Amino acid sequence: MIAIAHGLTVDPDLRARLADLYCAYDNLLNDGELELWPSLFAETCIYKVIPRDNVEQGMPIAVMYCESRDMLTDRVVALRETALFAPRIARRITTAICLRAIEPDGMHLTASFAVFQTMPDQPSELFLCGSCRDRVMDDAGTLRFAERVFIYDSTIVPTSLVYPL
Amino acid sequence: MIAIAHGLTVDPDLRARLADLYCAYDNLLNDGELELWPSLFAETCIYKVIPRDNVEQGMPIAVMYCESRDMLTDRVVALRETALFAPRIARRITTAICLRAIEPDGMHLTASFAVFQTMPDQPSELFLCGSCRDRVMDDAGTLRFAERVFIYDSTIVPTSLVYPL
Amino acid sequence: MIAIAHGLTVDPDLRARLADLYCAYDNLLNDGELELWPSLFAETCIYKVIPRDNVEQGMPIAVMYCESRDMLTDRVVALRETALFAPRIARRITTAICLRAIEPDGMHLTASFAVFQTMPDQPSELFLCGSCRDRVMDDAGTLRFAERVFIYDSTIVPTSLVYPL
Repeated sequence: MIAIAHGLTVDPDLRARLADLYCAYDNLLNDGELELWPSLFAETCIYKVIPRDNVEQGMPIAVMYCESRDMLTDRVVALRETALFAPRIARRITTAICLRAIEPDGMHLTASFAVFQTMPDQPSELFLCGSCRDRVMDDAGTLRFAERVFIYDSTIVPTSLVYPL
Repeated sequence: MIAIAHGLTVDPDLRARLADLYCAYDNLLNDGELELWPSLFAETCIYKVIPRDNVEQGMPIAVMYCESRDMLTDRVVALRETALFAPRIARRITTAICLRAIEPDGMHLTASFAVFQTMPDQPSELFLCGSCRDRVMDDAGTLRFAERVFIYDSTIVPTSLVYPL
Repeated sequence: MIAIAHGLTVDPDLRARLADLYCAYDNLLNDGELELWPSLFAETCIYKVIPRDNVEQGMPIAVMYCESRDMLTDRVVALRETALFAPRIARRITTAICLRAIEPDGMHLTASFAVFQTMPDQPSELFLCGSCRDRVMDDAGTLRFAERVFIYDSTIVPTSLVYPL
């Protein structure tokens, strides 16, 4: 369920459409359909994975940073064609999706995420968890992410971050 | 929130009824009310727990397999009366429940699941996670599972799988 | 999504308002806004964190127990001003929120929770999981918790329980 921050009123239908967008995002990545992943973003967009520590100290360095849909596509191509990594399965869950504000630049939402990772012949493990700060826009009738920032709680650099969050 | 796949339109009320079914399923198992668990399935049904590896390689072997409500009931009786196992608590969470298609044989849904397990005097641990492929039917006004397939991400056989997923 | 137990009928709007309350609760704690946390409770309220074992054996001892909003505020002040503890981040997720009954004393709900904890230079870990038994009241147009009982699955006393659940 998409929740709405105190003081905001929105149409039930918008809640449902936002829920569909967030679920589509998790489904694409959980199903390994990386090639479709960029289609959930606006053409000009911010995608960032950054440790919470950096955010709190105002440090800009992110472990992944893209600023257009094309850069996201590049990322997928690189991952498919050049990256070397041990096989693994990443399973993501998203909870507490909350519409915080509607501004001229879009709808601002936050959420919590956790990713479980499974390596062959290993039990599944909690890999990363944290919060999302997102901005969603209505792109000619389709909701798309204009911004997705994943802020992970750990201070350890997740060297094994292979798939996009 | 039940999400709806792109291109599908459904009544808000159906979203709510599906959410209620999925939540009832998790609640019954989390509360240990195993005897009521078969009532959430159609009389003829498929229930399967299978490793992702097998699904991807087209191998049919499942670690649990039932094809009727009666077989599910048998399973519960066996668990209550004959199975020997160390006490444990299983807590399940289900996210990203998504109605993917409505076909003549029912509504096709997917979801992500994770199960945390707690043994006495041990901290809680992630036990299994994976995806569900489900089919839900309207059984004279009541939604029931005609099919629930739990596909877990790990390649390790969960020997300690005692309670149904 | 807030689910509704079998046999109960409620307005879709109430589902949404309850979802907003639960999400606001998780957001306040995940964002570290402890000072606002008591505002989600009624002036007279029960807040309890108790091991499942004690609940099942009818033992009343809880590891945290407050019976008014003022006691919750005291707890926050103590935490901010006197408690000594290693820095950590707690991230909570809540699933399977279910309205079970509407009684003269309020709406009775249950939910599942899990808390992931992250210590500096450590990977994130599952800290606690369990169930909630809650009572929610309409307090002059605002939904508030009249009772929140967190029943954690583990029998180990979580000595490092610093932040409220």
